[in-house]
Amino acid sequence: MHAVTYELIKECSRTGARLGKLHTPHGTFDTPMFMPVGTQATVKTISPEELYDMGSQVILSNTYHLFLRPGEALVKKAGGLHKFMNYNRGMLTDSGGFQVFSLGAMRKITEEGVTFRSHIDGSKKFLSPEIATRVQEDLGADIAMAFDECIPYPADFEYAKRSTNMTARWAKRCLDTHNSETQSMFGIVQGGMYPELRRMSVEQLGELDFAGYGIGGLSVGEPKDIMYDMLSKTTVYMDKQKARYLMGVGTPDCIMEAVSLGVDMFDCVFPTRVARNGTAMTETGRLVVRNATYAEDFLPIEEGCNCYTCRNFSRAYIRHLFKAEEIFALRLLTIHNLHFLLRFTTKIREAIANDTFPEFKASFFENYRDK
Amino acid sequence: MHAVTYELIKECSRTGARLGKLHTPHGTFDTPMFMPVGTQATVKTISPEELYDMGSQVILSNTYHLFLRPGEALVKKAGGLHKFMNYNRGMLTDSGGFQVFSLGAMRKITEEGVTFRSHIDGSKKFLSPEIATRVQEDLGADIAMAFDECIPYPADFEYAKRSTNMTARWAKRCLDTHNSETQSMFGIVQGGMYPELRRMSVEQLGELDFAGYGIGGLSVGEPKDIMYDMLSKTTVYMDKQKARYLMGVGTPDCIMEAVSLGVDMFDCVFPTRVARNGTAMTETGRLVVRNATYAEDFLPIEEGCNCYTCRNFSRAYIRHLFKAEEIFALRLLTIHNLHFLLRFTTKIREAIANDTFPEFKASFFENYRDK
Repeated sequence: MHAVTYELIKECSRTGARLGKLHTPHGTFDTPMFMPVGTQATVKTISPEELYDMGSQVILSNTYHLFLRPGEALVKKAGGLHKFMNYNRGMLTDSGGFQVFSLGAMRKITEEGVTFRSHIDGSKKFLSPEIATRVQEDLGADIAMAFDECIPYPADFEYAKRSTNMTARWAKRCLDTHNSETQSMFGIVQGGMYPELRRMSVEQLGELDFAGYGIGGLSVGEPKDIMYDMLSKTTVYMDKQKARYLMGVGTPDCIMEAVSLGVDMFDCVFPTRVARNGTAMTETGRLVVRNATYAEDFLPIEEGCNCYTCRNFSRAYIRHLFKAEEIFALRLLTIHNLHFLLRFTTKIREAIANDTFPEFKASFFENYRDK
Repeated sequence: MHAVTYELIKECSRTGARLGKLHTPHGTFDTPMFMPVGTQATVKTISPEELYDMGSQVILSNTYHLFLRPGEALVKKAGGLHKFMNYNRGMLTDSGGFQVFSLGAMRKITEEGVTFRSHIDGSKKFLSPEIATRVQEDLGADIAMAFDECIPYPADFEYAKRSTNMTARWAKRCLDTHNSETQSMFGIVQGGMYPELRRMSVEQLGELDFAGYGIGGLSVGEPKDIMYDMLSKTTVYMDKQKARYLMGVGTPDCIMEAVSLGVDMFDCVFPTRVARNGTAMTETGRLVVRNATYAEDFLPIEEGCNCYTCRNFSRAYIRHLFKAEEIFALRLLTIHNLHFLLRFTTKIREAIANDTFPEFKASFFENYRDK
């Protein structure tokens, strides 16, 4: 029995969208869900209480960053990541795979694992399936991710095939190492932009007893229609009784399309990162509150939004804070953007429950400018 | 009748300390009080609700900064500073005098006012008693401050005398201009480090009908014993029925000494500024949480403290956030430091009420390291 299990509640009668529940040691959460990213054991600028208030369920932290600083030993000593950062709902750690591959020239991949240079002090470090698994056990999130290779885009077929096979071997090494009663591990499907490799990866990982599955190697630079095409040729082969997590995707349009293709979980730094640049997310698209057009605009960021920011502050005030380089500005837009995306996934769940998801999707795309 | 009035509740039987109430259009507040500084219409990193939670009463904003950005016209259009920044308790704006004099070579003083260059874009600006008063009326805080010249330290007697006389003439011009039913103005006592000029300034300003009095030109580089000496030779001549506000002072030892000399109100960027540098204030002195010694310390910042930060997070976690340059760290220490200082003034008020202020003061200095 896994510590974390997925329960399929309802399937959309006209699309691949599904309503589900994710049962974890820190509570049961609803899918489809968006997971706010707390890279370094904090969702940048905001508090756990602000996350609770906006309906946050599972949040994500990064093994790569915490392995380097403060180190998994300290987090373990603190009683695990939940206690260290004082967040009492669900938590997932990625494996560090994506981050080390992003280091480019600063890392070297072998069958054994990845040698890389720390972005903090340049020191030499090593992560392998075994180490990434043990580090995640020490961090103690509800869900750990298998250590994989993220195939760059574009990549030729032979490279993608070799890499996908290695990811499968690494996945087995992760599972063989993993030993926790309170944490479950998800495998990560790769396969590049090759449908047959995607299917092969699903089948290879499906033979291993993971609690759920990440879908990796998408949203890595390819056009959106290729991403949707690959996604459709991946989820169709996946076990319906396990959670499907599309890694690193978090814009409303991509979430909407991916949900209709049967995805349950999402994470992305997009909402928090653009917030810190002065960009708010709304149902019609982005609103750049730094722009001069909002200098004397006393409306809230998004009319009808009931987030803390929109209930209490005007565009003019938030713009002033950005111009004056005040930190409170970053927090106010972070709250709005995460609230927006969490509310967005709540509406998706309601539409699936009411069997109106296709209509909800059509109406969303009619209003949304930033495709 | 002034919009803001001071009510003397009780005098310490053995020192000059006094317990009082400040009645304002936004509520009645207790003195002695510390006023958190919200320079640019925000107390850096924290929310109005966090200020309420820690018992904040009156906060301060800076006319100089708001005059330059976003401009008093915008704040007026927003409905005033309270509404603009969504803070519903007391508010005070300084006159901008101290800031423009701090610009040094970038400003020129005449009888008419001060010409200066904006620190934002270098453009030429002008502030006078009349303009500073009208700007503060537009900002709409409960208390406005007269536009004064802050005498540098050291300054010769002749300069100090000329300047103190000009501050008195400027004070009259401010009062002649000031015209608000919902805002009161405080004069500012100057006089440099010359007791006879301090007394002269108190008497000059005392002839004008201000609602209260700031004490300016102290804590400008002089040794602390000179500051206390000047303070004692200032407050002794001041009207007991009006509030006394020592401007720019906010360390616990200085507050304690100044309270015992009859001061009612304080403001300082110290607690919020050192917080953002990783320094916490405690009853025994500063704690530099960035230091390696706290790397595996899972105690709260200050044992026994019931602030949000101390109830929820460890020194080790906050140190990690500082090392990782996470914004949440700045907020957590800002909350602790302001809570510390507000609780400190609450304890001072309780001691005066119980007639144990001298004992409380002695016991404080026994434990406090940072004199």
